[in-house]
Amino acid sequence: MSHYYRLVVSCPDRVGIVSRVSGFIAGHGGSITEASQHSDLESGRFFMRYEILADSIGMPPETLREAFRPIAEEFDMTWALADTRQRRRVVLMVSKASHCLVDLLYRWTAGEIDCEIAAVISNHETMRGLVEWHGIPYYHVPVPSDEKQAAFDEVESIVEEVRADCVVLARYMQILPPTLCERYAGRVINIHHSFLPSFAGAKPYHQAHQRGVKLIGATCHYVTAELDAGPIIEQDIHRVSHCHTPDDLVRFGRDVEKAVLARGLRWHIEDRVLIHGNKTVVFA
Amino acid sequence: MSHYYRLVVSCPDRVGIVSRVSGFIAGHGGSITEASQHSDLESGRFFMRYEILADSIGMPPETLREAFRPIAEEFDMTWALADTRQRRRVVLMVSKASHCLVDLLYRWTAGEIDCEIAAVISNHETMRGLVEWHGIPYYHVPVPSDEKQAAFDEVESIVEEVRADCVVLARYMQILPPTLCERYAGRVINIHHSFLPSFAGAKPYHQAHQRGVKLIGATCHYVTAELDAGPIIEQDIHRVSHCHTPDDLVRFGRDVEKAVLARGLRWHIEDRVLIHGNKTVVFA
Amino acid sequence: MSHYYRLVVSCPDRVGIVSRVSGFIAGHGGSITEASQHSDLESGRFFMRYEILADSIGMPPETLREAFRPIAEEFDMTWALADTRQRRRVVLMVSKASHCLVDLLYRWTAGEIDCEIAAVISNHETMRGLVEWHGIPYYHVPVPSDEKQAAFDEVESIVEEVRADCVVLARYMQILPPTLCERYAGRVINIHHSFLPSFAGAKPYHQAHQRGVKLIGATCHYVTAELDAGPIIEQDIHRVSHCHTPDDLVRFGRDVEKAVLARGLRWHIEDRVLIHGNKTVVFA
Amino acid sequence: MSHYYRLVVSCPDRVGIVSRVSGFIAGHGGSITEASQHSDLESGRFFMRYEILADSIGMPPETLREAFRPIAEEFDMTWALADTRQRRRVVLMVSKASHCLVDLLYRWTAGEIDCEIAAVISNHETMRGLVEWHGIPYYHVPVPSDEKQAAFDEVESIVEEVRADCVVLARYMQILPPTLCERYAGRVINIHHSFLPSFAGAKPYHQAHQRGVKLIGATCHYVTAELDAGPIIEQDIHRVSHCHTPDDLVRFGRDVEKAVLARGLRWHIEDRVLIHGNKTVVFA
Repeated sequence: MSHYYRLVVSCPDRVGIVSRVSGFIAGHGGSITEASQHSDLESGRFFMRYEILADSIGMPPETLREAFRPIAEEFDMTWALADTRQRRRVVLMVSKASHCLVDLLYRWTAGEIDCEIAAVISNHETMRGLVEWHGIPYYHVPVPSDEKQAAFDEVESIVEEVRADCVVLARYMQILPPTLCERYAGRVINIHHSFLPSFAGAKPYHQAHQRGVKLIGATCHYVTAELDAGPIIEQDIHRVSHCHTPDDLVRFGRDVEKAVLARGLRWHIEDRVLIHGNKTVVFA
Repeated sequence: MSHYYRLVVSCPDRVGIVSRVSGFIAGHGGSITEASQHSDLESGRFFMRYEILADSIGMPPETLREAFRPIAEEFDMTWALADTRQRRRVVLMVSKASHCLVDLLYRWTAGEIDCEIAAVISNHETMRGLVEWHGIPYYHVPVPSDEKQAAFDEVESIVEEVRADCVVLARYMQILPPTLCERYAGRVINIHHSFLPSFAGAKPYHQAHQRGVKLIGATCHYVTAELDAGPIIEQDIHRVSHCHTPDDLVRFGRDVEKAVLARGLRWHIEDRVLIHGNKTVVFA
Repeated sequence: MSHYYRLVVSCPDRVGIVSRVSGFIAGHGGSITEASQHSDLESGRFFMRYEILADSIGMPPETLREAFRPIAEEFDMTWALADTRQRRRVVLMVSKASHCLVDLLYRWTAGEIDCEIAAVISNHETMRGLVEWHGIPYYHVPVPSDEKQAAFDEVESIVEEVRADCVVLARYMQILPPTLCERYAGRVINIHHSFLPSFAGAKPYHQAHQRGVKLIGATCHYVTAELDAGPIIEQDIHRVSHCHTPDDLVRFGRDVEKAVLARGLRWHIEDRVLIHGNKTVVFA
Repeated sequence: MSHYYRLVVSCPDRVGIVSRVSGFIAGHGGSITEASQHSDLESGRFFMRYEILADSIGMPPETLREAFRPIAEEFDMTWALADTRQRRRVVLMVSKASHCLVDLLYRWTAGEIDCEIAAVISNHETMRGLVEWHGIPYYHVPVPSDEKQAAFDEVESIVEEVRADCVVLARYMQILPPTLCERYAGRVINIHHSFLPSFAGAKPYHQAHQRGVKLIGATCHYVTAELDAGPIIEQDIHRVSHCHTPDDLVRFGRDVEKAVLARGLRWHIEDRVLIHGNKTVVFA
């Protein structure tokens, strides 16, 4: 299978960025297989993502990065160049609800999500069997209400130890402390079971049922210190009616949550999501 | 064209309601062409709607109502029996945005919404030409910020004078006073240009853009004294991305608003919407 | 957990059916928790489904059936009365593609699909490990192109032996012989990976890509002797664009297939699907 | 309001196209406000569309075209450079069904579709009043079954006379002769009331009802000599059930048709649709 370099850039918008970057790549013989750009007119910021066939460029990623640096400095870019052979290391955090975990493990096995799953961390033992059957280390870190700090210190040290690039709260049901959110800003992905900003916080399906909405939803977003308020990556909905009990909503919701989280994680892993203040640019 | 009697009932749930009501109708030779029921397990309340071919019953609606009254009393029913020959009288209220008005007028002309449009009331003159071209009376009632009460008194007297059964706020952009909301409870329909309860209040598309949501929506609901908080009849959404400006959201939103309001109004007119506390049962 | 009797009826439409049936149930103290009716005006046929709290009726299902028989005869009904304690016995047939199997097993484990999975039959060994881990018998029945009849005879005898009520072709990729289709008419469910009647037959995603459609779909239907032409239970779609390769279509399609098959099977198991010529009435 | 140059290119894919084109534009000070690219791996063909702020380039379109020509030749490009001040001239063709016409006229009035409507041609007089009220010339060209050629000759001469860039069959219900299809290849847009390739030809909603599908659709496509088989621009669907009659399907379908045609036409007018064999690349 071919491997790729992924160049992701954001910088102040001005004439000549595309020309300069594409000229640089063409100058090295680089074959661009996918290109995406976006100019945000309000903020005057420019975003781009290039997928380049690695074999078309006769140099390793670190040399290419070195060569690109002057352009990045000239245009004041925030940027990264990834090599798809360096697979991202993902930690999944779960509680007792298994649907998102099972779904992600299946997609990972099927090759839909191209990453390493470095570990699963849970505040319960429930999923150990399934996870270890997949050959993935399972860490049980209980979160007693009076010793949360110690628990999250342990979570943090596991995340460090397994050198995770990304943490996924796959229905983890615990609120991460602000220090953790800030340390891993832009690298912790949550699935919230409502169409945010409606029904932030606890028991969103019950809130939705109470309000009598005709559509329920799920939201995949980056975690920030403010609960359920981080940059949104993806959302979707499912139609409901007066016939449906809160249990039905929970059941429909599981399908929406799985789909939305899987899309969000895939895009994150493929460097398709650029954070822009409290919003995202998604080159899906 | 055939006409129908529509029997709509809500009452405390217990054994034998369907049997008693369907037995009553069968006893009069009534041919039921559409039947819907719902038991709400939380509240223990039962809802039903029957559409009966009028010609199959050898009596006028008032006689049928008289005959039904003992059953209604026995089961403590809130109920109504409508005759489709008595078309509902609807008042449309609009401001300057024309898309919902144009859409409703087209559907009305095409026979999709079976009602009389008794009047259009607007705080602007903008739509007079179009409305009068359809042969519908147009009332211009300005709403100056220092004389709102007088304006809404005039609105109320027009609504009374034209004997409206139902008022539709088709992007009216003014907040009705609580007295009016209460007087016409369950008979005033609004289209709100967001997926409520997200983004209640003013400029919802700008709020949505600010928050970076990936779906925008519209909500058709009954108006209550609390702003944008009444029972929801229908909702729908449209997918958006980082590419889209607030103006794009407004443009996409127009299509969602039109569709959602048209469905909501049609269902209301056809007695398919039963209010149940702050929710609705919709026999669509 | 409560158990229910499910009464499903189809018969020529005439005045008094609902009254007679609901009167019968009320006469035995039966509490109806869900009721659905449909009159097909073209064919003059009537369909109904009642869900009755079993404990509210003081008799076992066979006694209730006996008591109902005269009414069924009077109205010339095709009917069945099921007891939810008698869980349906389902056989899943799979080939090498695992997504539908994994999804159904998960939903079954999670209680979303209330049935016994009596066996999995496959023309490959691939899924044995997963299936047996769930405690379900796995039958490997190869289908060599020159001995298909013998293979399907074996399939038939397994289906008989495990006393299956229903067979699900969960991406089985083999065409059942007409005799089998006819013997189990209305009891064999297939998932076809296109929006039928578009792209019947082999490699539908490649057909769809070739045609340049903007939406791909999946169809859950009952199997008949004519390939991909049986009564449709459920369909859904996913949006695609010029960006997507046939492989992307296959990947998106997996999610649609899983969702559509799971809904179709759940409805079938819950007696919500009534076959009507080459169509279905689905009381979802 | 700003105006733009739109550069649309398709050519054999090779290294350096983007670099060369973006370098050309940057060299003239051009500010790119929207850029889209697509590499089709199967055919090895490359597609791009640039939207350039006209004021950022100090030359009229013809001079810019002249300057670009050597690049176009070097890369063997099929290309066009449009100036948004030159609004496209559109002819709408209709029969008796008014919904698409009314919808397009409304969107045109509201500024959603930025074009000139040069004429409306119909085989009936029905829509004359509405069309002329909008100040648009109306041509009544009856199409008697024994004089079709003469009728279409007249259509052709009107299209020529009003210098139309694009012809929209907005539920025209007549089949254009092959000569006309070929003469205006890639410039005649049709809305077909089914999810093609299902239900090509006449009465698709009745075909759909007959087949018992659970979703109906509409397809906007370029007209070719083969009926309902041209490159698809856009499609969408609406969910239906056993409850719905063919008349309901027609009613739901109207909304889908309007939406799909409006999107397709808008994209065509904005040079977002590139034809590629029997498919389209849509930079929506």
